[in-house]
Amino acid sequence: MNHKMILNTAGLIVALEGGLLLLPTLCAVCYAEWRVALCFLATAVLAALVGGALVFLTRRRDRTIYAKEGFVIVALGWILLSAFGAIPFVLTGDIPAYHDAFFETVSGLTTTGASILTDIPAMSHGCLFWRSFTHWIGGMGVLVLIMAIFPDANGRSIHIMRAEMPGPVVDKIVPRVRDTAKILYFMYFGLTLAEVIFLMTGGMSLFEALIHSFGTAGTGGFSTRPESIGAFSPYLQWVITVFMLLFGVNFNLYYLILIKRFRSAIRSEELWMYLGLFVILTGVIAWNIRPLTAGIGESLRLAAFQVASIGTTTGYATTDFNLWPNLSRMMLLLLMFVGGCAGSTAGGLKVARIGILLKSAGKELNRLRHPRSVNAVRFEGKPLSEETRTGVTNYFALYALLLAGILIMIGGEPFDMETNISAAISCFNNVGPGFSTVGPAGGYAGYSAWAKMVLSAAMLLGRLEIYPIVLSISPSTWRKK
Amino acid sequence: MNHKMILNTAGLIVALEGGLLLLPTLCAVCYAEWRVALCFLATAVLAALVGGALVFLTRRRDRTIYAKEGFVIVALGWILLSAFGAIPFVLTGDIPAYHDAFFETVSGLTTTGASILTDIPAMSHGCLFWRSFTHWIGGMGVLVLIMAIFPDANGRSIHIMRAEMPGPVVDKIVPRVRDTAKILYFMYFGLTLAEVIFLMTGGMSLFEALIHSFGTAGTGGFSTRPESIGAFSPYLQWVITVFMLLFGVNFNLYYLILIKRFRSAIRSEELWMYLGLFVILTGVIAWNIRPLTAGIGESLRLAAFQVASIGTTTGYATTDFNLWPNLSRMMLLLLMFVGGCAGSTAGGLKVARIGILLKSAGKELNRLRHPRSVNAVRFEGKPLSEETRTGVTNYFALYALLLAGILIMIGGEPFDMETNISAAISCFNNVGPGFSTVGPAGGYAGYSAWAKMVLSAAMLLGRLEIYPIVLSISPSTWRKK
Repeated sequence: MNHKMILNTAGLIVALEGGLLLLPTLCAVCYAEWRVALCFLATAVLAALVGGALVFLTRRRDRTIYAKEGFVIVALGWILLSAFGAIPFVLTGDIPAYHDAFFETVSGLTTTGASILTDIPAMSHGCLFWRSFTHWIGGMGVLVLIMAIFPDANGRSIHIMRAEMPGPVVDKIVPRVRDTAKILYFMYFGLTLAEVIFLMTGGMSLFEALIHSFGTAGTGGFSTRPESIGAFSPYLQWVITVFMLLFGVNFNLYYLILIKRFRSAIRSEELWMYLGLFVILTGVIAWNIRPLTAGIGESLRLAAFQVASIGTTTGYATTDFNLWPNLSRMMLLLLMFVGGCAGSTAGGLKVARIGILLKSAGKELNRLRHPRSVNAVRFEGKPLSEETRTGVTNYFALYALLLAGILIMIGGEPFDMETNISAAISCFNNVGPGFSTVGPAGGYAGYSAWAKMVLSAAMLLGRLEIYPIVLSISPSTWRKK
Repeated sequence: MNHKMILNTAGLIVALEGGLLLLPTLCAVCYAEWRVALCFLATAVLAALVGGALVFLTRRRDRTIYAKEGFVIVALGWILLSAFGAIPFVLTGDIPAYHDAFFETVSGLTTTGASILTDIPAMSHGCLFWRSFTHWIGGMGVLVLIMAIFPDANGRSIHIMRAEMPGPVVDKIVPRVRDTAKILYFMYFGLTLAEVIFLMTGGMSLFEALIHSFGTAGTGGFSTRPESIGAFSPYLQWVITVFMLLFGVNFNLYYLILIKRFRSAIRSEELWMYLGLFVILTGVIAWNIRPLTAGIGESLRLAAFQVASIGTTTGYATTDFNLWPNLSRMMLLLLMFVGGCAGSTAGGLKVARIGILLKSAGKELNRLRHPRSVNAVRFEGKPLSEETRTGVTNYFALYALLLAGILIMIGGEPFDMETNISAAISCFNNVGPGFSTVGPAGGYAGYSAWAKMVLSAAMLLGRLEIYPIVLSISPSTWRKK
């Protein structure tokens, strides 16, 4: 294990966070929140010093790393990021308890959007900005950002990228990792900017447009309003619906469009499964909630928004869907597992994995029908390698076992089963709201400190797709071979 | 597809059911329930005639069948068995609606034990006997019984046995299928008889001892009492606890004991996982429910009974565990997925599959740590074939996808989410009771006819381990090659 390289990269991450903390500092200054600005500045300096010291102390190092170092770097990086990112909430007094602040920061960085806040309008602008900005950082990934910025990124290699990016197969868009990272952030920035413009066109203030664009881009879900997006006009609701869907698409497709390979982009099997699921569920739910709404237009708007929000694991709401009929609620609960496309900022299992699981199951049926026949599973027009296929089914097994573990660990909390089950599913898939007590009109404030820690771990496991965290805490990773 | 052989075996199954229906006829006669006896006799004659006609019409046939015929025979056989088995409930008027009677019969045959009855003491002895006797028939399997009885069993071959017996790998105990079937029924009969004797020693009447032995042996769960086993003494509760555990063990182990290969029996990895899980969960739950009980003795008795009952998917209860603390309830809900050992009469995923899933996930972690290393998964002391391993992970994928489908199909029922979720999980895993409305003190009477059909399908899918039903209704099974 290359310890120096791990600590060096961790130091870079913390130092970079110091830099990123200057943005909320600036925001606080703009709103003349001097005390808040000072708290953010102090945290920025602390992070820069700690991170800088780590980088300096490990400057002479062997730059080669392997897969396991990649996983450890990502796990450690994200935990440090959350640990430092929580400090300003405590210093400003906006979230007095550190475990609450840690939960909120993890929820932000993992783009979950589950909140322990009970009085959002009482928060300072600086803290609200930082809270939503963590969505934007976590959405594309902080290590991808590091690879895009720092010159020696190629030494850190594809292993880190694979460990941080979601989906069953992670490939570089272009041969060099650094260029890939830059292209990803360029497209991410561009789409976010486009959303800010569309939102401001609809009458949103710059501050709220930024907040909600961060929340949409990262598929996070933190808002400035207690009613979430329900506080805004139908135009703004539709804009956010469309952008949630856009950010749930594999970013490789945007690159294909950028280089004008439209036909390749449009032929993506995962894209059509993703859009098909959206259309079908929107239709069924719109029909199911008709009696609760003023007309078919409103039904469609509400259904489309909620399906896009839960399907991309964003977690915004335009209505308290906890009050919807049972069928719609059950569909939304199950939709939490699906998530967006691989290579997007969304959480969940990812549409590609569900597709591969379906096809693997179909292959098994075929094998039973004709025991001697050989038939490969095809996905995205190519036969799937056996490694990818067993990788997906094994991931699913581990995913289910971990979900069972999370359910047991928070199973003793004093809420109804619907609350505990939906909280575990929602956090593990990085959605945000659940049902009953943790529904869109409720929150996670009532959970014990223990449950908040368990759910924080669940969010990290979900965002990093299990392996980095599990491998980092398993002793055999650290044993010398 | 060998249609004649399929219909021939289906005819045999129906005719055999005609014979089995003479037992409840006899029981009704003993209790002087003449009208009930006549209803059973009429059904017996009808089944014998229909079955006999089918067998006669298809008597000239090619006896060779392949895997896919095996699946279709099992699916068709079980559906016919349920369809005919439901008739006496309607004729006697004990369950007036046919869809209710069908649900109750499927629940009996699949050894689920979910009931739509609201007034058990009002039922006739004949119907109560038949209801529980279906557990006993369904536990070891009706096709295994046919192979044990009829002389040309070997023509029907291992394919049928594989399709009906639960577990990831089904092997013959002895070289000839017919002898294997005979040995299985011999052990099954012997263990059931032992339980009857133990229960009568504790003061149970012969009738109730038979009913509850059938329910335990098949891991079913139908009782004659509204309070289930809670109506009986602690001695009887412990007897049933032990026998539930015994019937959840792989029957191959009993054969090893019969032929005095004790060491092989005791070395079973699955057995130790099964017992370990029982001991741990009993300990945790006994500790968790202490405040509700009179002392540690009662806590242990209640915890051990409920864990054995849910763990083996029997579904008997000695207390309304729906009133237990959240942690215990969540553990029981998750335990429903586990089920007993492969090759037992229990439902669920089976301990062996969970073990293989765990090890597959562990293998994936190892592959990520050391991408070049090769390490096989070992289970029961032998390296697992890649086919078995992918078979298990693919089964799990299909299982999860089907569970999602069942949840959506009953998701619109007017109960809370806890009821609908636990009903789907409980029926799919052949447990019986769930939580909230379908808890041990409640039942399935309130569900719509549609939901009862969906849950009946779920029970059949669970008992036959998915493939027979899914393959039989998939068009490509019927397409000529």
